[in-house]
This record gives sequence, C-alpha cells and structure tokens, in this order.
Amino acid sequence: MAVAFDPPPADKHALEGAGPFTPKFDANGLVTAVVTDARDGELLMVAHMNAEAVALTLETGIAHYYSRSRAKIWKKGESSGNLQTVRSFRTDCDQDAVWLKVEVAGHDATCHTGRRSCFYRTVELKDGQAVLAITDDHRHFDPDTVYGDGK
Amino acid sequence: MAVAFDPPPADKHALEGAGPFTPKFDANGLVTAVVTDARDGELLMVAHMNAEAVALTLETGIAHYYSRSRAKIWKKGESSGNLQTVRSFRTDCDQDAVWLKVEVAGHDATCHTGRRSCFYRTVELKDGQAVLAITDDHRHFDPDTVYGDGK
Repeated sequence: MAVAFDPPPADKHALEGAGPFTPKFDANGLVTAVVTDARDGELLMVAHMNAEAVALTLETGIAHYYSRSRAKIWKKGESSGNLQTVRSFRTDCDQDAVWLKVEVAGHDATCHTGRRSCFYRTVELKDGQAVLAITDDHRHFDPDTVYGDGK
Repeated sequence: MAVAFDPPPADKHALEGAGPFTPKFDANGLVTAVVTDARDGELLMVAHMNAEAVALTLETGIAHYYSRSRAKIWKKGESSGNLQTVRSFRTDCDQDAVWLKVEVAGHDATCHTGRRSCFYRTVELKDGQAVLAITDDHRHFDPDTVYGDGK
C-alpha cells in the first residue's frame, strides 16, 4: 500500500478545507462508503473501508471495501463479475464518510440478492407498524448460480 | 415513541424479504442513514439513527437522527431552518442502513459549513498523495450568523 494517510488535524478549518485527505477512521479503523451509480445517481450500497481499502481504491480505480463479516479486504464483484469502476471519489465535512460514484460491470447489479441496488425495499407505516414493501424485485442474476452457495 | 421494532430474524430469507422492518442496530444502537435530495439524487449527508430517531422520522415525516457527538436526538435543521421532509424511506438487504430521499427547507443547504451537501470535496491522487479539492464552494448561508458560534 503506497498511499498513506495522516491522522485528522485538530484544527476544524484544516479538517474542512482543501489539503491532504485525512480520513477519520472509527474505533474499528473504518469509514463509511456510500456508493451510487455514476449513470443516474441511484444509491447502490453502503459499505465500509479501512485504510488499505481506501488506498487500493484510489490506486487502482476499482472499488475495494473491508468486509466486516469476513474481516478482510473485499474487492467488490470479484465473485460475481460486478466490479465497480470509480468515476468520482468524494468525502464529507468531517472526513468520516466517502462517496463513490461508480460504473458497475457484469450484470449491472450490486446486491448479493441479484438486484441492481441493495435498497430494494421501502419502509412504510401501516396500522402503527413499520413494514417493508419490495420496490424493486428484478433479479439481474441468480445468486445460487453466481455464488454457488445460496448466498 | 409508538413505533417499536423487533430484533432481526435469524432466517436470511425473512431478513431480505417483505414483512416487518427489523433494523439491525449496531453495538451502539445505531443504523447508518444516507440522505439524498429527492429533487435530483445529490448525496447530501450521512448520519446515524437510533430506534427513537427511526420512529420519530416515520411518525412525523421529518428527518430525525442521533447525534453521536452530542449523544442525543437531533432534529436536523432545528437551528438552521433546513428541515428535511422525507419523501421516501428505504432500507438495504441486511437492514443496517436506511436511505432517505428528502426535500430540504430553509436555505436548501444541509452541511453545517453552509454548502448544499457535506460532500463538497473530491479526493484525488497527486504525486502519490491523496489530496482534497473543493468541488462546491457555494455557501447558501453564513454559519457564523446561523449558528452564532462559528460552528
């Protein structure tokens, strides 16, 4: 990993201005990554990055994350072919979140369920209860075939 | 708080299907909230919600978050007037993140720096270093005047 990051500056104006990118990693060494489709702005997924994932993404132009469940670097799309080419990489005012605009290869799908976006369900109140309605049920691929484990 | 949430089901198909909304709160009792502008999809901010913030948002239609720095419920825009009316409320496959599409009142600005979005800077590699360039420097309001504390 060639790209390294300094710790965030104590000075608020330095933190919020131009200058070096100093990601504010949380207690687990992660920042939040929001991923939208460069084509039309659809929110595709939310994931996390450690310093290595941020560096790999900047260096290669292909999105890498940190899988909390597998506790390792996760090159998104390595199994499914749905790799993400990064067209824009932004950060927010306190540098604890990043926003990637990506082009998705393969099936044009990001969710492991085969849908284009992980956010395929709408939350609604019905009779005082919060319930989920499926807003997008189009499967771009069959997860059983692609992952081979029913995931 | 009238709306309550059951713990996430152990069954993966139940978790990923229609049915009750069962947010998967982290060790701090929070889910990640991604907030985009209902008008054009611009990413405005990333925040966090506890169960009370989720319930208040669903019940009132006005976005409420949980401020980790202040350790309390945060009705976004209460000081600045930039309240967020929620037009759509989605969740992702494992229900640990939510996506709000909002209409912003007041100055049409979400960032405490006065900009429309918190993501006003682009990260770029220059000579092997990650540096920030300011992509949007238009201030919709003067933070010193609105917050009165130079925040």
